[in-house]
Amino acid sequence: MGDDCALLPLAGGRHLATSTDLLIEGRHFFADAQPQALGHKALAVNLSDLAAMGAQPLGCLLGLSLPAVDADWLEQFASGFHALADSAGCPLVGGDTTRSISGIVISVTVMGQVDARQALRRDAAMVDDDIWVTGALGAPDIALQLLNGTLPMDQSLLAATRPTLDRPQPPWQFAQKLPGLAHAALDISDGLLQDLGHILEASKCGAELHFASMPVHPALQALDTGTVQQAVLAGGDVYQLCFTAAADKRQAIQQLADDAGQPISRIGRIVKQAGLHVWSADGQTISLASRGYDHFS
Amino acid sequence: MGDDCALLPLAGGRHLATSTDLLIEGRHFFADAQPQALGHKALAVNLSDLAAMGAQPLGCLLGLSLPAVDADWLEQFASGFHALADSAGCPLVGGDTTRSISGIVISVTVMGQVDARQALRRDAAMVDDDIWVTGALGAPDIALQLLNGTLPMDQSLLAATRPTLDRPQPPWQFAQKLPGLAHAALDISDGLLQDLGHILEASKCGAELHFASMPVHPALQALDTGTVQQAVLAGGDVYQLCFTAAADKRQAIQQLADDAGQPISRIGRIVKQAGLHVWSADGQTISLASRGYDHFS
Repeated sequence: MGDDCALLPLAGGRHLATSTDLLIEGRHFFADAQPQALGHKALAVNLSDLAAMGAQPLGCLLGLSLPAVDADWLEQFASGFHALADSAGCPLVGGDTTRSISGIVISVTVMGQVDARQALRRDAAMVDDDIWVTGALGAPDIALQLLNGTLPMDQSLLAATRPTLDRPQPPWQFAQKLPGLAHAALDISDGLLQDLGHILEASKCGAELHFASMPVHPALQALDTGTVQQAVLAGGDVYQLCFTAAADKRQAIQQLADDAGQPISRIGRIVKQAGLHVWSADGQTISLASRGYDHFS
Repeated sequence: MGDDCALLPLAGGRHLATSTDLLIEGRHFFADAQPQALGHKALAVNLSDLAAMGAQPLGCLLGLSLPAVDADWLEQFASGFHALADSAGCPLVGGDTTRSISGIVISVTVMGQVDARQALRRDAAMVDDDIWVTGALGAPDIALQLLNGTLPMDQSLLAATRPTLDRPQPPWQFAQKLPGLAHAALDISDGLLQDLGHILEASKCGAELHFASMPVHPALQALDTGTVQQAVLAGGDVYQLCFTAAADKRQAIQQLADDAGQPISRIGRIVKQAGLHVWSADGQTISLASRGYDHFS
């Protein structure tokens, strides 16, 4: 029951990639979450799992358990869900709706297809691979800290960071083009260091990262260095991709990203020696209080 | 978001059939449910949806949200789930485990494949088709009534009926052979009359049923006629198949059933005129207080 995404053989050498997520009110979202954003995010986190394999979305299923029928809530939820489903070419093809005892429960399953010989996997990183990330890092974690009071409230900072928490934009389009070019990949759901750590563990290698190369979200400029480092390296809920690829694929990958309008950054290198080192601009090792999110804590 | 099972086109003319169900503690099962039986049933209700299309199971996904980690509970749940998954050729290929705020939530998604031109559908019944059901009817509803006090407790009756409630055995093996022979099908989850009613509505026709031909579960012999009729015609949780097929396929269908060791019964006929009539052995129309289960009541 471990992996995020599973492969099933289909006729013609293609494989079916599937992923399922269970979102519980009070645990994964708040009762007063804006339903349109919730509809978007419920699908986005699963599209992110497909992106991590380089799979092309085929369709999705939605299970919804609600304490009562609220037509307005449902309509907004559906509009957020469908808008992303349409843009990602991942139509809603079935589902199950029931009444819950307490609180909202959402289950989303996505299905995609990928050539299994080229599917991105967590155990496929090679020594001397470049390490890349899509998009920007750190903003969802700052939004979460503002909302839960870990950081003192700053309305303009919240306004600048909250969209990345509420409406993650996984690079599902760019990711479909990576099989054949990239080796290993994972989506950053629990924090860059933790998710990259899964790649290193599965691939039996280490990594060196350069903080100065990382795509820090521009809204984080005014924050102190420690807060920014923590958010960028260990902050979860990002739903961008961390992937590795041979150095001779640099140009092809950058071209792909330019064609897709997808910002990407080369942040480090896979090394033989186990361990994960992050270097600051002045050559110091960065160490963090916490390296990421634990699902069952 | 309506149908139980959805079809997605794959390469080579085959289609992917999928179904998802969300099971909530206190709503779909009791907190003290035997975890092995729960693991079985969570998968069985979804295999039943695949059977209703005549699809061949490919694999399944499990989402599990638990208030706490209980290794013993998990092991028993997994053993019930895996035993059925193995026998149905439907391996567990992925999932998501999280901690819930209160109560257990289970989401199961199954995937199967079927030739879409021959897939069983609710809107495919033809006038003069035979109406068939698999297995026996009525026992799960009696077990439920004994457990919730609607019927006075009778321990030997409960012992004889409860296995059908706790461990439904959908005819997934027999059902895979029906495409090309049968026309319409649905699994009996909400009650025979209600589920057959969905077929009639979608196929724009009516039906005549003969109660004397129905496979009443043998444990129900000592109960009064009204209780038996209600349980057989309107009792839910059966997870057997109701399907229609042309009369000239009678022999082929019976042969299939014999080969699979699957009891089946021919209980009526599709007619042109809308409406659903059930005749008793003495030529009277049977009418019921309630025709089945409403999901959102």
